[in-house]
Amino acid sequence: MNAPTQIDTSAEDLMANAIRALSMDAVQAANSGHPGAPMGTADIAAVLFNRFMKIDPSADKWADRDRFVMSAGHGSMLVYAINHLLGYDDMDMDQLRNFRQMGYRTAGHPEYGHAKGIEVTTGPLGQGFSSAVGMALAERMHNARFGDELVDHYTYVIAGDGCLMEGVSHEVIDFAGHHGLGRLIVLWDDNQITIDGSTDVSTSMNQKMRFEAAGWHVQAVDGHDKEAVAAAIQAAREVTDKPSMIACRTIIGFGAPNKQGSHSVHGAPLGDEEIAAAREALDWPHAPFTVPQEVYDAWHAVSARGRAAREAWETRLTASAHKDAFQTSMANPDAAALDAAIDAYKAKLSADAPKVATRKASQMALEVINATLPNTAGGSADLTGSNLTMTGDMTDVTASDFSGNYIRYGVREHGMNAIMNGIALHGGFIPYGGTFLIFADYGRGAIRLAALMGVRVIYVLTHDSIGLGEDGPTHQPVEVLASYRAMPNLNVFRPADVVETAEAWQAALKFENTPSMLSLSRQGLPCLRTEHVAENMVAKGAYVLREAEGGRDVTLIGTGSEVEIAMKAADLLAEEGIKAAVVSAPCFELFAAQDDAYKTSVLGDAPRVGVEAAVEQGWAPLLGQNAAFVGMTGFGASAPAGELYKHFGITAEAVAAAAKELIK
Amino acid sequence: MNAPTQIDTSAEDLMANAIRALSMDAVQAANSGHPGAPMGTADIAAVLFNRFMKIDPSADKWADRDRFVMSAGHGSMLVYAINHLLGYDDMDMDQLRNFRQMGYRTAGHPEYGHAKGIEVTTGPLGQGFSSAVGMALAERMHNARFGDELVDHYTYVIAGDGCLMEGVSHEVIDFAGHHGLGRLIVLWDDNQITIDGSTDVSTSMNQKMRFEAAGWHVQAVDGHDKEAVAAAIQAAREVTDKPSMIACRTIIGFGAPNKQGSHSVHGAPLGDEEIAAAREALDWPHAPFTVPQEVYDAWHAVSARGRAAREAWETRLTASAHKDAFQTSMANPDAAALDAAIDAYKAKLSADAPKVATRKASQMALEVINATLPNTAGGSADLTGSNLTMTGDMTDVTASDFSGNYIRYGVREHGMNAIMNGIALHGGFIPYGGTFLIFADYGRGAIRLAALMGVRVIYVLTHDSIGLGEDGPTHQPVEVLASYRAMPNLNVFRPADVVETAEAWQAALKFENTPSMLSLSRQGLPCLRTEHVAENMVAKGAYVLREAEGGRDVTLIGTGSEVEIAMKAADLLAEEGIKAAVVSAPCFELFAAQDDAYKTSVLGDAPRVGVEAAVEQGWAPLLGQNAAFVGMTGFGASAPAGELYKHFGITAEAVAAAAKELIK
Repeated sequence: MNAPTQIDTSAEDLMANAIRALSMDAVQAANSGHPGAPMGTADIAAVLFNRFMKIDPSADKWADRDRFVMSAGHGSMLVYAINHLLGYDDMDMDQLRNFRQMGYRTAGHPEYGHAKGIEVTTGPLGQGFSSAVGMALAERMHNARFGDELVDHYTYVIAGDGCLMEGVSHEVIDFAGHHGLGRLIVLWDDNQITIDGSTDVSTSMNQKMRFEAAGWHVQAVDGHDKEAVAAAIQAAREVTDKPSMIACRTIIGFGAPNKQGSHSVHGAPLGDEEIAAAREALDWPHAPFTVPQEVYDAWHAVSARGRAAREAWETRLTASAHKDAFQTSMANPDAAALDAAIDAYKAKLSADAPKVATRKASQMALEVINATLPNTAGGSADLTGSNLTMTGDMTDVTASDFSGNYIRYGVREHGMNAIMNGIALHGGFIPYGGTFLIFADYGRGAIRLAALMGVRVIYVLTHDSIGLGEDGPTHQPVEVLASYRAMPNLNVFRPADVVETAEAWQAALKFENTPSMLSLSRQGLPCLRTEHVAENMVAKGAYVLREAEGGRDVTLIGTGSEVEIAMKAADLLAEEGIKAAVVSAPCFELFAAQDDAYKTSVLGDAPRVGVEAAVEQGWAPLLGQNAAFVGMTGFGASAPAGELYKHFGITAEAVAAAAKELIK
Repeated sequence: MNAPTQIDTSAEDLMANAIRALSMDAVQAANSGHPGAPMGTADIAAVLFNRFMKIDPSADKWADRDRFVMSAGHGSMLVYAINHLLGYDDMDMDQLRNFRQMGYRTAGHPEYGHAKGIEVTTGPLGQGFSSAVGMALAERMHNARFGDELVDHYTYVIAGDGCLMEGVSHEVIDFAGHHGLGRLIVLWDDNQITIDGSTDVSTSMNQKMRFEAAGWHVQAVDGHDKEAVAAAIQAAREVTDKPSMIACRTIIGFGAPNKQGSHSVHGAPLGDEEIAAAREALDWPHAPFTVPQEVYDAWHAVSARGRAAREAWETRLTASAHKDAFQTSMANPDAAALDAAIDAYKAKLSADAPKVATRKASQMALEVINATLPNTAGGSADLTGSNLTMTGDMTDVTASDFSGNYIRYGVREHGMNAIMNGIALHGGFIPYGGTFLIFADYGRGAIRLAALMGVRVIYVLTHDSIGLGEDGPTHQPVEVLASYRAMPNLNVFRPADVVETAEAWQAALKFENTPSMLSLSRQGLPCLRTEHVAENMVAKGAYVLREAEGGRDVTLIGTGSEVEIAMKAADLLAEEGIKAAVVSAPCFELFAAQDDAYKTSVLGDAPRVGVEAAVEQGWAPLLGQNAAFVGMTGFGASAPAGELYKHFGITAEAVAAAAKELIK
């Protein structure tokens, strides 16, 4: 916790100016990008890295590294410049010369997974900050399990005015203050400029007072006074029971003598003339994309310090009694143990065949999962008793005790999802969190980033249709499933019963690089999967739940709570001598990934009727040419669930009638 | 501005207890609902209505009424009970007896348009509060045009802990403080309870300090001390240059002696036993759904006072020199004037055929529209120069001058959309606001409510595909169009050129009860509609842009920036003797509403190729059986736009190849 000693600060001006020069030159070469933020925050970054950051570019995934998040992601050149200067082996000068070009790692905004040392994808404002809260939370939770010996790092954020204007910032500021995340240090780039001009065009917020209201430790400094910045960071590090915000008053585009301090420098190249003037003003006579060795030496000293720290940590890990448990926590979950536990649970289920809501089935599955996997981290956005996300063995994560595994996210869906991104990115835990399906949309921005980054976050989304009943159309999703099925790299599971719910959880947990949603019913649903329980059929996306003896006249396809309706419709049709197969389709994405032979075996060549208490959009690949759909065409209504199903015509009778119309 | 005089306060206890009794009885009858909030806030509501509210139930849409918003919409019984007691003619006791039942106006959450006196649909937390900020803004803007004589009312909000935890609250608190919305008075139901338990489970926010940091006038009172509540409201009314927040410390479920103050009373019926105990505790011996005449009399006095105020206002309006202008502002826009202006503009366009980005085309159309319609209210979430939402004649709306018509929403997409809902609901203005298409999702919660309520809000969403280029996948929508096409009662327009953009605006402005999105390009697009410019073809949803002479071999269907690609593909095919028609499909929803004959005439019976720089989902109704789609299958990338189109295979060559494959 003490400040690093014997740091050479003599080259910090050069360290900062190297960031500035590389940033303005790269933006100019691309003829696209944002020079203002990297030039304005270069001094802060130079101080932070030179005096405090603990990272080792030769081991970029080292668990105990400090995390640095450039939440103002449009300032991506700050990250690329720093990572080049530090010596990351995938960030040579060619990457900087080709900023924002096809096939290079230097994307317009920092993209997690594109290059080493990018902790989180940023750009959509507020997301980096919010995910950093998740990282800082995960650090304390991990620390509570493995101690200072193995887990002892900080999360630093540079956030812009936009990050602090976005609503999600409020959610996570309150959350971080409530949880006393003392290892979180946010450096606010207080440049008083947004795209539309001066910040006083649109805000009068006293940010210092605002953060203090949330229980943060707050300081304010001149962001170009390196000693002041360093002293503030040091003071922030020493406050262990509160997150810290340091308001760094900066000049946007610092160093561009004729444009700095104006929104003209925010998001456009400076131009050759101003770049020449900046070189003069900064006393940086070097050619574009040229950095003197003494500057590299100064940055490499940061890397060397980090490498030494990492090697010392490796030694501690090797000697630690916690070594195996620590490594297990950072690895993929034990698939064999998970499979064995789920298989045993399913075998029991198929005997009992309980009728339960799939939200309850989710809780039952979680009882098995949480007892099997040591590092799930559950939670809910203030709907614990409705989402049924807490299991018997869970305890709350609190500011005074981070050893728990259940997170009270509050009424903060966006914050929850962004924090879960941060937890997943930090490592050590598999986060899941609950809200109503309709309120997934409040946190959609963070779900999209989970899909884009490819992180394992699991959304437990209950009350998933008009089946929630009386709460009415504000709470009844009709378009939500379609809207998320449209999103790349996101698995949308809608299990039909207690067995499928267990299989959906099992499948979701194994996707290391794809987030998953579980769409779950409020209302009770019969156990339909009483056979073939040995195999995870949900993992195939869709499967034949009931085959039609002697060839199909029609195939009925349902998801979730409507599979029961399809089964009843098949019974009705059988009474009339019509042979109907029933397909359960709990995950369209996974079905799309099956081979054609399997798809054909499931869908058959008979006419098809789809049924889902939602809009038809997205069903085309399952329905094909000669098909009908029974579902919703508009918003829901407020009434008991059974009446709503009748009112909107989503019934076994309607499905049977649609089938007969198709085959007549 | 002075407090109403000679108010009889002697019956306020009874007025409040009537709310409590009706609420607990209705929730019990429904066996579903939330008694806690209405019982806890009944005293506040009784004081507010009895001493301050200016409403006339016999003229529920009276422009100068005070607005009351129950932002904690789960407490809907408060609204229904009050509206029954006030004598709204559509809220008889039968409605209350059938709370949350099919076909009744008393939905689980208050639904705008279901019953009189419901100013906004609430339930999704934070939305009511945020829309109320829009109402209070519209009031000041309208006042700046028509003076105190015609526009002089307050907006009152009851907000719960959840409303204040949601991120959108931050956005609008900052906005309201910055704009000095002195006519906005927020009564915070500070009951220290959320669904998961005590608020200290998840928040440590000092709300008073938080609001003060945003420039609000803040007070705190005992929410069951009626004189204290009245004094605070009166003081809040007298502060004209700041919005006011009154923290009302309440006991949730007040009056239920054994359950009050606990989260058990939040969202479940009290049960017969506790209801009996509450009747005893409240000294309310009356049978369920029975209200003594003296209590009705007290509530009806509020209505009578409002009626007198409304009649006096009508007299002032009749005598006012502003009468016509005022009525015009509250009515639908002058369609004839709009049509004439757009027609003249289009005729000129077809001669010039300018190549412009559709975002620029939108600004050009707005120059015409804003010069024609007196009451558009534009704005942007800090992307004015990118969205091109400001026209030459516009001036900013500021705290010191509300006569402008351009709103600086700041980096607050969710707040912007919710505020626009409030402006539209208030009346007097047609709001439109801009951001990037990708960031529509940050404000999706409010867009859904606009669609559900059916209000005229227009979203100007630029940078609508990989065509934005270097900003990369965080900023490139691929699933966004599909996700909004799935939403009921929302028109998604994606115009192809400068003419279609004008037509999209023209169509959108005429939809009184449907919000519209305009999906607009960053990149320049040629003018393709050089013929048939007299008719608004966009209003038909899709149309034949180029017919194939002598019968079609294939039909190419594109939207927005990809119509140009379809046209080029048709040229390529023509070189090979293949006759391709090109259909532009700027609005799937409006095309779906056309008759079958028109649809068939447009789509034809040749094979079809769709092209859109987005995912295929949602295209099924246009493509039919023998079809191909050229578009995106995953997230985008960071590179110049032209390279991205090539990289992802969205080119004229690819469309032509797909066509040839289909017809070979």
